[in-house]
Amino acid sequence: MGIVVQKFGGSSVADVEKIKNVAKRVVETKEAGKAVVVVVSALGNTTDELISLARQISPNPPEREMDMLLSTGEQISVALLAMAIYALGHDAISFTGYQVGILTDDSHTKARILDVKSERVLEELDKGKIVIVAGFQGVTIDNDITTLGRGGSDTTAVALAASLKAEKCEIYTDVEGVFTADPRIVPDASLVPEITYEEMLEMAATGAKVLQLRSVEFARNHGVVIHVKSSFTGGAGTVVKEEDKEMERPIISGVTHDTGEGKMTIFGVPDRPGIAAKIFRPLAAANINVDMIVQTVSYEGYTDISFTLSIDDLLKAENIIKGIVEELGAKGYAHDKGIAKVAIVGAGMKSHPGVAADMFDVLAKNGINIQMISTSPIRIACIIEEKHVEDAVRALHDHFQLSEEAVTSETL
Amino acid sequence: MGIVVQKFGGSSVADVEKIKNVAKRVVETKEAGKAVVVVVSALGNTTDELISLARQISPNPPEREMDMLLSTGEQISVALLAMAIYALGHDAISFTGYQVGILTDDSHTKARILDVKSERVLEELDKGKIVIVAGFQGVTIDNDITTLGRGGSDTTAVALAASLKAEKCEIYTDVEGVFTADPRIVPDASLVPEITYEEMLEMAATGAKVLQLRSVEFARNHGVVIHVKSSFTGGAGTVVKEEDKEMERPIISGVTHDTGEGKMTIFGVPDRPGIAAKIFRPLAAANINVDMIVQTVSYEGYTDISFTLSIDDLLKAENIIKGIVEELGAKGYAHDKGIAKVAIVGAGMKSHPGVAADMFDVLAKNGINIQMISTSPIRIACIIEEKHVEDAVRALHDHFQLSEEAVTSETL
Repeated sequence: MGIVVQKFGGSSVADVEKIKNVAKRVVETKEAGKAVVVVVSALGNTTDELISLARQISPNPPEREMDMLLSTGEQISVALLAMAIYALGHDAISFTGYQVGILTDDSHTKARILDVKSERVLEELDKGKIVIVAGFQGVTIDNDITTLGRGGSDTTAVALAASLKAEKCEIYTDVEGVFTADPRIVPDASLVPEITYEEMLEMAATGAKVLQLRSVEFARNHGVVIHVKSSFTGGAGTVVKEEDKEMERPIISGVTHDTGEGKMTIFGVPDRPGIAAKIFRPLAAANINVDMIVQTVSYEGYTDISFTLSIDDLLKAENIIKGIVEELGAKGYAHDKGIAKVAIVGAGMKSHPGVAADMFDVLAKNGINIQMISTSPIRIACIIEEKHVEDAVRALHDHFQLSEEAVTSETL
Repeated sequence: MGIVVQKFGGSSVADVEKIKNVAKRVVETKEAGKAVVVVVSALGNTTDELISLARQISPNPPEREMDMLLSTGEQISVALLAMAIYALGHDAISFTGYQVGILTDDSHTKARILDVKSERVLEELDKGKIVIVAGFQGVTIDNDITTLGRGGSDTTAVALAASLKAEKCEIYTDVEGVFTADPRIVPDASLVPEITYEEMLEMAATGAKVLQLRSVEFARNHGVVIHVKSSFTGGAGTVVKEEDKEMERPIISGVTHDTGEGKMTIFGVPDRPGIAAKIFRPLAAANINVDMIVQTVSYEGYTDISFTLSIDDLLKAENIIKGIVEELGAKGYAHDKGIAKVAIVGAGMKSHPGVAADMFDVLAKNGINIQMISTSPIRIACIIEEKHVEDAVRALHDHFQLSEEAVTSETL
């Protein structure tokens, strides 16, 4: 019997009525003859409420204890969903990350899945039960609870689908799928019916919130086809899969943006070999992900180094950078929270030179200054002032003719 | 280094400020040179809120899933308390029931502790950490989460104290200790400074809410001395321990009452050997605790059988009794939620005959009819109409001279 993994995000289980709706949808799949494994996030804003509770206790709570705290959110969801499925006359059983054997490393608050021991899941599926698994959480070999970072439930679903060799991995969310831009900023953004893992990775890395970056990596590495769908409408959604050579790709698949990053600059760094490692190794050791890095041309033996990172890590990074500035004899450092990243992503870019120049042109014509640039074969990202981000997204979306009408008229 | 187990109930950790106060108290004990293990209940009304959430999903949710749900309450508390202790500059680590190895049977919602594997606790105490354990929860050998029933955190604390051979087990609560009657009903009830396990068991069984019955059983079986104290005042509290032969015991230690029970009666049961077993074995199998049982004198080959049980189990029991009535060819059944139990408890009763007669006299003089009677060497309990319960408690407390002034004047 084919196994289907279905993942429902926090907004899909935000209240009792919504949980009952998810139960109905799950039961429909079961009654259609599938073995169903459901992955659920915490109810609505539970995670944020727990974080706020923790902050009232301590401005900088230990991460192991944060994971202990936050993992309760998903545990509540799975128990309630199991009850709702029972109430519909079907047999269900809920599991925590620990119980299902989601083994992770010990990087608390952003742990990586090392292994999924799915024996218990298979055993319960064999008994005809619907299996419900708490997303977002795992356990170290020392039995300490970990969490997988924001959106980690997507990764749980993909990892389970890979481990169970599921025939489908459906990610239900509060949006219709992947769009050519954030529809809140670009109302005529169009739905992308199919997208490659690589494009999805670049979009997730540059701000598209639909899927967690790591879940897409995991899916690519294990060949899991992800189907992103709306929990609330019956829309077709977006399929994320291997690049299909037959298919004509559009040059640009989407415009993304991210206002969740900040910029740090270290001024007057003595320009010697090895300084970059001296700066970025301690940040990596502290589990801080650095995104873009720019080093200015050396002037009289000194250089400035800027990098971007998640605003959430800014405080932690600053504490580390303080010591580094002293150690290197640099002149000082500063941070800037008022930046944004805007990016264009598209597999078709590889065979179309000049796309980067187009992007810079569009931004310049709109009076938007570029602070940092980062490119990959299928993505160009620019750091700009945060206040210009919506204008930039609209101008780029318009220029690359990504709206529904533009796409249609081009096709005709 | 001596180990102290401290347990804090839900009202002691009802909000952020109270959690911080508990952290201070724990740190004081640690700084006084003790190895400290803290057991915590869920924050304030969390458990009730979770139960209400479950009831909105299903009127009769599966008990395994209830345990999955309810155990999150304590997990939140332990994480927050660990953070609060960290914020005071001490090292702390929190554990769920599973992580600490609290192994139970699989009677979900009222599981019994089979074993406590305290290696991990000892390991962390050896590192100088304050260890915080989620009360009320355990795990079966199949790794399913269980809960220990209302007040189960007391049992967690006592079981840990026994397993760790702790020198002290302190139960912090929102009352000053054990009283001669509920002070809300009898304002001049007096604090009992010392009480035997047996008396405490009888008091817990007949309605005293201070300690969970099972925790007292566990303490008696393992010789753990329990010290019940207020979280909020510096009062002396009550020590629960082995009977001290030297000590003169008062005849009556306290008057208790319980309005949480209901009565079921099966009418016209054919009076054959084995009928009682036919009725009570299926109830026991369904994990329903029956308290008092009364069978009327047989009349023309038929008898009526009444028993009391927790109101929470009434619905479940009724479903079972329905089938039994049919099977036995009995005439029918009825239930009554409007009853109450009132009891007097005292080790001194053993050497003072006539106490039961005194009790019946007092109730009769106050116009209170007795429906059922149950006695033990140190306890007499009567089922009466619920509306008379406060009058009964006051009259008995008065008759046996248990108030502060009465005790004092008698001593003089």
